[in-house]
Amino acid sequence: MGSPVVASEEMVAVGVRARAAALAMARVGGLAKDAALTAVHAALASAKADILAANGRDKAAAAARVADGGLPAATAKRLELGGAKFDALLQGVTSVRALPDPVGTVSRATRLDDGLDLYRVATPIGVIAVVFEARPEAAVQIAALAIKSANAVILKGGKEAEASNAILVQCIRKGLAAADFPVDAVQLVATRGEVAQLLSLNTHIDLVIPRGSNALVKYITENTKIPVMGHADGLCAVYVDAAADMDKAVAIVVDAKAQYPAVCNAAETVLVHADVAPTALPRLAAGLAAAGVELRADDRAYAVLRPDGSDDASSADGACVVRACADDWDTEFLELTVALGVVESLDAAVDHINAHGSHHTDAIVTEDSAAAGAFLARVDSAGVFHNASTRFADGFRYGFGAEVGVSTHRTHARGPVGLEGLLIYKYRLYGQGHTVAALFILGTGAE
Amino acid sequence: MGSPVVASEEMVAVGVRARAAALAMARVGGLAKDAALTAVHAALASAKADILAANGRDKAAAAARVADGGLPAATAKRLELGGAKFDALLQGVTSVRALPDPVGTVSRATRLDDGLDLYRVATPIGVIAVVFEARPEAAVQIAALAIKSANAVILKGGKEAEASNAILVQCIRKGLAAADFPVDAVQLVATRGEVAQLLSLNTHIDLVIPRGSNALVKYITENTKIPVMGHADGLCAVYVDAAADMDKAVAIVVDAKAQYPAVCNAAETVLVHADVAPTALPRLAAGLAAAGVELRADDRAYAVLRPDGSDDASSADGACVVRACADDWDTEFLELTVALGVVESLDAAVDHINAHGSHHTDAIVTEDSAAAGAFLARVDSAGVFHNASTRFADGFRYGFGAEVGVSTHRTHARGPVGLEGLLIYKYRLYGQGHTVAALFILGTGAE
Repeated sequence: MGSPVVASEEMVAVGVRARAAALAMARVGGLAKDAALTAVHAALASAKADILAANGRDKAAAAARVADGGLPAATAKRLELGGAKFDALLQGVTSVRALPDPVGTVSRATRLDDGLDLYRVATPIGVIAVVFEARPEAAVQIAALAIKSANAVILKGGKEAEASNAILVQCIRKGLAAADFPVDAVQLVATRGEVAQLLSLNTHIDLVIPRGSNALVKYITENTKIPVMGHADGLCAVYVDAAADMDKAVAIVVDAKAQYPAVCNAAETVLVHADVAPTALPRLAAGLAAAGVELRADDRAYAVLRPDGSDDASSADGACVVRACADDWDTEFLELTVALGVVESLDAAVDHINAHGSHHTDAIVTEDSAAAGAFLARVDSAGVFHNASTRFADGFRYGFGAEVGVSTHRTHARGPVGLEGLLIYKYRLYGQGHTVAALFILGTGAE
Repeated sequence: MGSPVVASEEMVAVGVRARAAALAMARVGGLAKDAALTAVHAALASAKADILAANGRDKAAAAARVADGGLPAATAKRLELGGAKFDALLQGVTSVRALPDPVGTVSRATRLDDGLDLYRVATPIGVIAVVFEARPEAAVQIAALAIKSANAVILKGGKEAEASNAILVQCIRKGLAAADFPVDAVQLVATRGEVAQLLSLNTHIDLVIPRGSNALVKYITENTKIPVMGHADGLCAVYVDAAADMDKAVAIVVDAKAQYPAVCNAAETVLVHADVAPTALPRLAAGLAAAGVELRADDRAYAVLRPDGSDDASSADGACVVRACADDWDTEFLELTVALGVVESLDAAVDHINAHGSHHTDAIVTEDSAAAGAFLARVDSAGVFHNASTRFADGFRYGFGAEVGVSTHRTHARGPVGLEGLLIYKYRLYGQGHTVAALFILGTGAE
């Protein structure tokens, strides 16, 4: 972890204000939260011109850096808040407001004794820090989720979106103030060295959510004692079983790889059972080639697809096929490239995926329900799919209404995370003067 | 965190074997786990003489250290495995076996489209490390919970119980082998420097559970990137409201403080509403004095209890009353001492508890349901109790059947944690060739 970072007084004060806001929110009910979201929506809508002006400054600065080669064009593009993006930003607030209030839901109720009732009740986690990169609309989406879940949030955006983030958070706080809601429920930090300082506030912050590149997630995971919810990699696989329906296999593999290759739920590896490789591989190759995908084939797949040893795209499948190197099985390509291998059995596919995958989402294509059952039980991933594309691994498609992120961690929340991931619970016990001594329950366990 | 610890090859191998066992357990069902627990029970029962002989060696070594002043007598006492302890140890295995299989429980089911069904299914977390101190029976209890939840566990016991732990884990593994169950589901590490090395295995271990002193928990929390589930402090409070029934108040306060003062759910602070202080304090003082409790009173409480300024235990209440110092409000006494204060309002009580408590368990005594509702909503603790003793905060009393520990963290699990705390979930999606492209669902969020 290197030498310990000491947070500045200003940064500690941000943490203290966030905790105070979190405690103050324990007094507000669902109606007050929805009213706050309405006011936030109004504040953003009425400041549209100013927001787009600030966004224009960020975009101009980014364009200059792109011209200098100092910033990738894709990063600059993500700054855009104009046009349909602005409407989507406002719609996001309305959508979160429309979700059922998640706080107060009872997930367990037990009568411990006459007149002694225990309830497990959903509560906010407390103070959440979110570190996000270029997209400024994330500030609005996260703030809306925090308000709905009654968590205080500390936002740290990327410097490319500094002006956009500043005015968005200013509008959000103006809306909160207008609704008489704790204003420090949403704070933005924008001082230098702020990420390292934020990550040192482990007594003030209960959860950190990184939203951005693998490098950002890894940096945060390595540099804080605060629990982190996020995912660093999305190395998803599709396994085409011996009993696969080949039409489904081609459709699913092409969708998983090529429908949107830059996202974490896109497939990077396709494994084909040896029994069907001679017929399946040419069809898969043709389908992937038609979608513009380059194939990195293992020796057995290569031998099927290019028996003459050439990597000629003028073959019947029209595909660009090259020999896979060892690293290809551990690479999240995030582009139109896929590693394609032949496995001897379902067991070999499972072992490969558990060893090389990122435990995000993996799919089997098969008409054999026993094979599907084995794959879904034994693949150790947040999502295990039968006859469906890995691209379905998404909070919106899962029906959560909003997505906080995708977790490949194994505690708290796993897979796509909706509003529920921002909650924990407390136990409420209602008695009538009950004492342990009177119930003659002997202590065990920790006692 | 100091300089990074590098795990030895042997320690890494322990982690690798644990992961392999965890993956192998994905193949076993509830019957196989229960059969393994039966075999573990039999192996322990049949090795009773050897276990007690090994335990005798630990006890003799500890007795010598106690005589030298090198070990507290209480620590030595916790080593005992003979008599009723051995029966309880065996009974613990049977009790865990009797619990319903927690793996595979469906907590969410959604039809996403025609023939496209999503299920959220409980799964083991994976590999769990448990660091525990003197009590060797903890090894058996934890192993039983791990087997039932299909997690692989790496146990690190205290050196005082080295011989006891070694033979217990040897018997457990013998039982697992006899039942043809993955033997490395339960491993014991006992090399020097092992805790720091274990804590460095953040890619091999998914969760660390410290069971022992505050110092142990703090050390672990400060020295690992692996998620930690545990609690460092138990600074619980009872607030006696203006509308309290005084019989209930006295019974609850005495039970919470004195029934078993050495445990984390015992009360350390009692706050009394100013309106009832003149009548409540003498009754509370008398009740606590009868239980042998020393009172550390704030100025207002002192003025009521000792209007002449003396701390004479020959007063009507019979209590030993001294003036509280500032530290008393932040001290987990764990003995027959309590901090006793007067507050102006329920708000002041809530603020005091949120500022000075450890977010473990706090209680209000009142007949005013609005006051109870406000207290339970606004006190930011894992357990919030109305008219019941804080001593009920315990996995067994909560009806969990087994307790993994008590968590004061705000993610994953909070409060007493049962078998459920050793589980997470995966999403299973069953389709019929479904692709995202064909459903025309537009990407949002992360895309």
